[in-house]
Amino acid sequence: MSIPASKIKFIKSLHRKKYRQKYNNFIVEGDKIAKEMLHSNSLRIEGIYATDSWLSTNKALLKLHESVLFKVSLTELGRISTLKTPNQVLIVAKIPQRNFPNQHTGFALYLDNIQDPGNMGTILRIADWYGIKTIFASPDTVELYNPKVLQGSMGAFLRINVFSTGLQTIREAFPDKVIYGAFMEGESIYNIQKHPDALLVIGNEGNGIHPDNMPFIDKKITIPKGKGGGAESLNAGVATGIICSEFFRENPQK
Amino acid sequence: MSIPASKIKFIKSLHRKKYRQKYNNFIVEGDKIAKEMLHSNSLRIEGIYATDSWLSTNKALLKLHESVLFKVSLTELGRISTLKTPNQVLIVAKIPQRNFPNQHTGFALYLDNIQDPGNMGTILRIADWYGIKTIFASPDTVELYNPKVLQGSMGAFLRINVFSTGLQTIREAFPDKVIYGAFMEGESIYNIQKHPDALLVIGNEGNGIHPDNMPFIDKKITIPKGKGGGAESLNAGVATGIICSEFFRENPQK
Repeated sequence: MSIPASKIKFIKSLHRKKYRQKYNNFIVEGDKIAKEMLHSNSLRIEGIYATDSWLSTNKALLKLHESVLFKVSLTELGRISTLKTPNQVLIVAKIPQRNFPNQHTGFALYLDNIQDPGNMGTILRIADWYGIKTIFASPDTVELYNPKVLQGSMGAFLRINVFSTGLQTIREAFPDKVIYGAFMEGESIYNIQKHPDALLVIGNEGNGIHPDNMPFIDKKITIPKGKGGGAESLNAGVATGIICSEFFRENPQK
Repeated sequence: MSIPASKIKFIKSLHRKKYRQKYNNFIVEGDKIAKEMLHSNSLRIEGIYATDSWLSTNKALLKLHESVLFKVSLTELGRISTLKTPNQVLIVAKIPQRNFPNQHTGFALYLDNIQDPGNMGTILRIADWYGIKTIFASPDTVELYNPKVLQGSMGAFLRINVFSTGLQTIREAFPDKVIYGAFMEGESIYNIQKHPDALLVIGNEGNGIHPDNMPFIDKKITIPKGKGGGAESLNAGVATGIICSEFFRENPQK
């Protein structure tokens, strides 16, 4: 039941984006996220590598996957894990194919070159909190299947569709959407009219929204600073949270 | 001008909390934060370790500190740095003595066992954005002078006083303060009355507010979830940002 060397090599290759894309496979790790994934039943599971004790306490959940179960020691898990301290279980799953939606109404996010996996994970978690089901992301945004993104998202990736696309494509596909961009200067988020069919664009951590995307922004909005505030900016995840809170107080997601 | 071995050992010891507390010294790194620190003039600088090019482009700023300047190579910087890729400058400074304030009115935060340095840095940055000058933190909250906290705070630590103390002490010292606690269940942040002399308690990432602190909470508040939202919780930094936004829209800091 232990893992052949070729399998170890394969799983380790999935630590890197290049091979995730080549093989269309990705990794998730840890008891909680593994259980959520198996419960959700929405992804094709290619392999479950777990300790004896984890396998025996999760028998019911594993019934459908007996052909892809591998019992491993903690040492073996350490060899294939992306974590400093490997957890009890690692799952390899297939990256699902997502076709650009034919239609979309309601609130969605557009991430313009978000680079930090922690921020990306946090933003997925915020979207999941507010029931936002669709995130569009520029092709240069950090990859959804980056292990740090998945870990930070706390399972949100199972409930949210992320589409990699340019902002122009969205503008053309959904001409009725009102596109809001988060800027250092703009109208206060407390005063703007919030359209129920809104797209919120969040820019890169250091550089903000890319100049090429400016023509597609309908409304520049900003989070007002407090009196005596010294910070130059807010973290991209925090800014997303504050603006979403403002939109959802008035327009709870249908 | 290169650094003696004993100095290298001393600076490396400051990577650890134990020695920061023993020597009452801490480290900050990077061009931007170093400049902010020298401009602010609020801390006693014990040593500036920088590359030749950094020293020569920042001469005016360094006038008051000529006796503690050390020109170092990038290799030497790498040896004393806490970063994977050392920046051009590292500063050693004295940890300032903070006496518990005799009086306090206006909005403040209480951090109850925040453990993640990234969250702590993010929360400092939020406080700095809203002009919140005072943060109280439980003694088991991650240390302010942890290099990752300082790095994440983007210089906010220069403008905010952080006091380590129990919640009971605050309750007794400031009996008129209204203490709000962030919970998974409570009154919606959109409906509560926001007292201008408020203390907002943010709990630990996994466990929330400690049971021992419950008796001191006047009002349990919560961020309403969106319809169809699946996430169990929001990140502690994001939750802090959303609640602060709600308080400051109505009570801008004086």
